Amino acid sequence: MNYYLDYQSAKPVDERVVNEMLPYFSERFGNPASLHSTGDLATKVLEQSRKKIAEFINTPNSTDIILTASATESNNIALIGTALKNKRKGDHIIISEIEHISIRNLAKYLERQGFNVSRVPVDQYGIVRLDKLERLINDKTILISISSASNEVGSLQPIKEISEIALEKEILFHTDAVASESTIPIDVQKVPIDLITFSSNDIYGPKGVAALYIKKGVRVNPVIIGGGQERGMRSGSENMPGIVGFAKAAEIMKKEISDDASKLKILRDKLIKNVLDSIPKSFLNGHPEKRLPNNAHFRFDYIEGESLILRLRDLNVSAATGSACSSKTLEPSHTLISMGLLHEEAHGSLLFSLGRFSEEKDIERAIKVLPDVVKGLRVLSPLTPPDLLKQYNEVIK
Amino acid sequence: MNYYLDYQSAKPVDERVVNEMLPYFSERFGNPASLHSTGDLATKVLEQSRKKIAEFINTPNSTDIILTASATESNNIALIGTALKNKRKGDHIIISEIEHISIRNLAKYLERQGFNVSRVPVDQYGIVRLDKLERLINDKTILISISSASNEVGSLQPIKEISEIALEKEILFHTDAVASESTIPIDVQKVPIDLITFSSNDIYGPKGVAALYIKKGVRVNPVIIGGGQERGMRSGSENMPGIVGFAKAAEIMKKEISDDASKLKILRDKLIKNVLDSIPKSFLNGHPEKRLPNNAHFRFDYIEGESLILRLRDLNVSAATGSACSSKTLEPSHTLISMGLLHEEAHGSLLFSLGRFSEEKDIERAIKVLPDVVKGLRVLSPLTPPDLLKQYNEVIK
Repeated sequence: MNYYLDYQSAKPVDERVVNEMLPYFSERFGNPASLHSTGDLATKVLEQSRKKIAEFINTPNSTDIILTASATESNNIALIGTALKNKRKGDHIIISEIEHISIRNLAKYLERQGFNVSRVPVDQYGIVRLDKLERLINDKTILISISSASNEVGSLQPIKEISEIALEKEILFHTDAVASESTIPIDVQKVPIDLITFSSNDIYGPKGVAALYIKKGVRVNPVIIGGGQERGMRSGSENMPGIVGFAKAAEIMKKEISDDASKLKILRDKLIKNVLDSIPKSFLNGHPEKRLPNNAHFRFDYIEGESLILRLRDLNVSAATGSACSSKTLEPSHTLISMGLLHEEAHGSLLFSLGRFSEEKDIERAIKVLPDVVKGLRVLSPLTPPDLLKQYNEVIK
Repeated sequence: MNYYLDYQSAKPVDERVVNEMLPYFSERFGNPASLHSTGDLATKVLEQSRKKIAEFINTPNSTDIILTASATESNNIALIGTALKNKRKGDHIIISEIEHISIRNLAKYLERQGFNVSRVPVDQYGIVRLDKLERLINDKTILISISSASNEVGSLQPIKEISEIALEKEILFHTDAVASESTIPIDVQKVPIDLITFSSNDIYGPKGVAALYIKKGVRVNPVIIGGGQERGMRSGSENMPGIVGFAKAAEIMKKEISDDASKLKILRDKLIKNVLDSIPKSFLNGHPEKRLPNNAHFRFDYIEGESLILRLRDLNVSAATGSACSSKTLEPSHTLISMGLLHEEAHGSLLFSLGRFSEEKDIERAIKVLPDVVKGLRVLSPLTPPDLLKQYNEVIK
């Protein structure tokens, strides 16, 4: 039995999606570039799938959707492709201080290519400061890239407000929506975003496929050069089973997102309340309300997140620390540091992220084992203050 | 019933591969970056898979294998990555006149970035001319990229000889082995190649996953920037089911390649003999012996390949024309033109490509229907000379 509470790192593919994909491996395996019946079917299915993926973010133009192999690749096109296409207009790009590593490394790459990158700070809850954003914009600013939610502390960003600022200043606005796409609907007809990264696995579709929404009229350079698939924006033979799976996942998610989010919020709130009530010196990172419905990010004084995760692993509970996508680095989380936490505070963090298949029993397991795990580590930690140790000892008696 | 003779465009995934992949969608769905048991399993499986893929090309170092999402992406790293990394050393790159569109478009891209690209011509059989290659090399040459076989006419390139020339001149040598990897073994211990592109679907694995072999010590720049997966050479969360499938496909192919190739050669030779014997003014393009065991590329005077394919489609036979990956363009094949064919000759071409699941009945169907299809089109063609028309009419009586 494994109690999986790390949906932010990887999600199981929905069985309904796997069933939809299956015929496309060995039976309907055609290449849309071919002129025969097997190819014709692939072309038809490719465009039907693109339409479903377009509907997921409520764009009426399925040609706005470029299919890629990963959210990272979509981010590459969004940042490098936009920067290179617009470099005559300006050389200044704005990201936030708490972006996912793929955006942060892209920003460093663009700096080496001669672009200037500003990083907007966040408040104590990990929410981008709009006043600072407006002050950073100058007449050379060509792109703002800010994710829809922190993939770590789960804080929701003011995407609508940012998109309106960008629109008014005629700056392109890109958002990486991967962290929020399974719980918060994207509607490009309501929010004027120019470029959106979203992935298949993050809505319970297969890994290895993702999309970049490029609003009609927005021009970017391709990153991968070749046979000219995806209107020349992303070459390479289409991964048909993956695309079919992504489309099915999008169709299901669109229908179920509201129910999924409501269910997850109840589980998450139960988890947060119980952990904070039962463990002394425990804190919730991120905003208490403006957070992803599936995110519970804690901080426990005097101990390290890595040790917590390893102990939890032995008790069959899967969780994450630091940046949700690279738990293996021992660097303190840049997000938590940006929020104003001290290094030692940042190190004691733990992320539980829930998803479609989370159940009461998963939450209950975490609630049951976590107090003892934290206590066990604190008893061994040289940082734990005597009064807390005493309190633990009294409880033991 | 569909008689599929277009394996060069797309291959069905072997059922043994699909079965191997299945548990990795919804059960073993972990991210190798995670620190818990689900992540640990993914890390282990990722490295086991990489080892199998390394063994397929007989390298003892599995770290030589970078996993990507497509052969096109592998080619991007091989060409752009090498060019940018070595630009201080030189700015000259050599490809052949008959490369796949992904290499040709990459070459054009690099020319726009200030690199000089030479294109080695081929002989009448579509085989790269080594004398011309040697003459094109200069002290600014940093890379030679020549595919292992033509994906159109199937001619095998003198890869061993080219690799030895490159080694002697201290020039990096890249080969796109996609067209030959299912029929001709790759052995990097016997042939000193620096970079090799090979894909999963071309050995009956899933689409959406491929590899770039980078010989130990060869340094290239990444193309996709992000979280630093694949030793920083290719960022993005790993497509685990795809990678597991690729590894299984490689393992099977390594065992069965020799039997597959022998079987295909017999079928191919039967097809070639019967077509040439039964259809007047029909020709085999490419070399009669030095060709892929699964490739039968014909030319029929006075008619167009596109019409042939559409007629064959109506008779449930799937074939390809022109470049095997982009039948939909109506440009004459650059490969055939390089081989010295006239435009009107190039237009009358038809590619049958066979694969693991090809059977006698597929070949027999093609042999049975093709003469009448060719005749039907020739009777309508204004180019058909009167004596041939007369011959056809006499046969009708």
